[in-house]
Amino acid sequence: MAGEGDVKLLGAAVSPFAVLARMALELKGVSYEYVHEDMGNKSDLLLRSNPVHKKVPVLIHDGRPVCESLAIVEFVDEVWDTAGPSILPTDPYQRAVARFWAGYADGKLFPAYFGIERAATEAERAEKVKETVAVISQLEAALSNGKPFFAGDSVGYLDIVVGCHLFWLEAFSRMFGVALVDASKTLLFAAWAERFGEDEVASKGVVPGADKVVEYFKKKHQAR
Amino acid sequence: MAGEGDVKLLGAAVSPFAVLARMALELKGVSYEYVHEDMGNKSDLLLRSNPVHKKVPVLIHDGRPVCESLAIVEFVDEVWDTAGPSILPTDPYQRAVARFWAGYADGKLFPAYFGIERAATEAERAEKVKETVAVISQLEAALSNGKPFFAGDSVGYLDIVVGCHLFWLEAFSRMFGVALVDASKTLLFAAWAERFGEDEVASKGVVPGADKVVEYFKKKHQAR
Repeated sequence: MAGEGDVKLLGAAVSPFAVLARMALELKGVSYEYVHEDMGNKSDLLLRSNPVHKKVPVLIHDGRPVCESLAIVEFVDEVWDTAGPSILPTDPYQRAVARFWAGYADGKLFPAYFGIERAATEAERAEKVKETVAVISQLEAALSNGKPFFAGDSVGYLDIVVGCHLFWLEAFSRMFGVALVDASKTLLFAAWAERFGEDEVASKGVVPGADKVVEYFKKKHQAR
Repeated sequence: MAGEGDVKLLGAAVSPFAVLARMALELKGVSYEYVHEDMGNKSDLLLRSNPVHKKVPVLIHDGRPVCESLAIVEFVDEVWDTAGPSILPTDPYQRAVARFWAGYADGKLFPAYFGIERAATEAERAEKVKETVAVISQLEAALSNGKPFFAGDSVGYLDIVVGCHLFWLEAFSRMFGVALVDASKTLLFAAWAERFGEDEVASKGVVPGADKVVEYFKKKHQAR
């Protein structure tokens, strides 16, 4: 890893945000050590590296921690700027648009679908399903450029920011018998999701697969 | 404005996020037209420019809208890269740390203090005051570098991201008789707040002042 420094990524089994950070590292071809965190028994390294949120992912570069997945992606893109294509668009306006949508996806998508699992009543659950589909419908606006990916002809920033959630959406669709990524409602998004799933970055072994999420919740419920 | 393009900023009277966008433009010395939005009767331009959130601020550069204040600041920094000092740190690691704290401040500070006004009971209000002070305590960690500003010796990214909220914190301290920026609890932050208030960017007329916020809520409550 000469010239790159020492790179560790602290992640956890099914964290979509850890998957996002790993996808960024994969896109840039960065060699890194993946350190699995047991979130029920957090390591001193995690607590010391992210004292504010105590959450994964944390990227540790030459001993210095970077927290929050979107900041990690931008950091990876800037440090390994000559390794592989730029993750963010290079044009300032396109970057701003990508950051807008990334902030939207990051802030809205996870709370919406995670709410499906947390819902106390069927009505609340239905509301959260509706909310998730509404967020996906909004994201379609960013896809309506006629290109195969958000970033254009190949996978970029917004593709991984949204794409890291697809295995959760699939797991939740199965677990609750609901259609979240549904070609009859959001055709462009469903087609993009299929393309993204076939892309190298999504099939490189950094995405745990929907089964792992289903298993995770089974264990969680048994432990209650 | 040759070489800069046409720049409009849609803002609203007391929006801290619009103040943030204006501070970025001021730091870079960008000439721009400030367009006041009546948030009770939003303009077609606003609705067309920010169809997702329908909120200010929106920066319109040569007819193309950029939404969300943090994305606007980065856009301004990138487009006017040779005009004045860089707003974000230039070192990738320092940029990542600044982005981490900006995300923290952006996500936590406003909901905490805005909750003081929204609280239904005194107990809830006290809880939100505590939460606001806790967020400020966390932000102190980013100040403990012995330098006068978050960014070092002069005002930068995190200074304006946090500093744009100071007139609200002052207004709320007065309105509810509570100490939010309190040297007895957060000495470093209180000293920074004083320094920031004396800085050129905070005294250039883009900060409405606490009186305007107090007035805004008075009118809002009369209208109920």
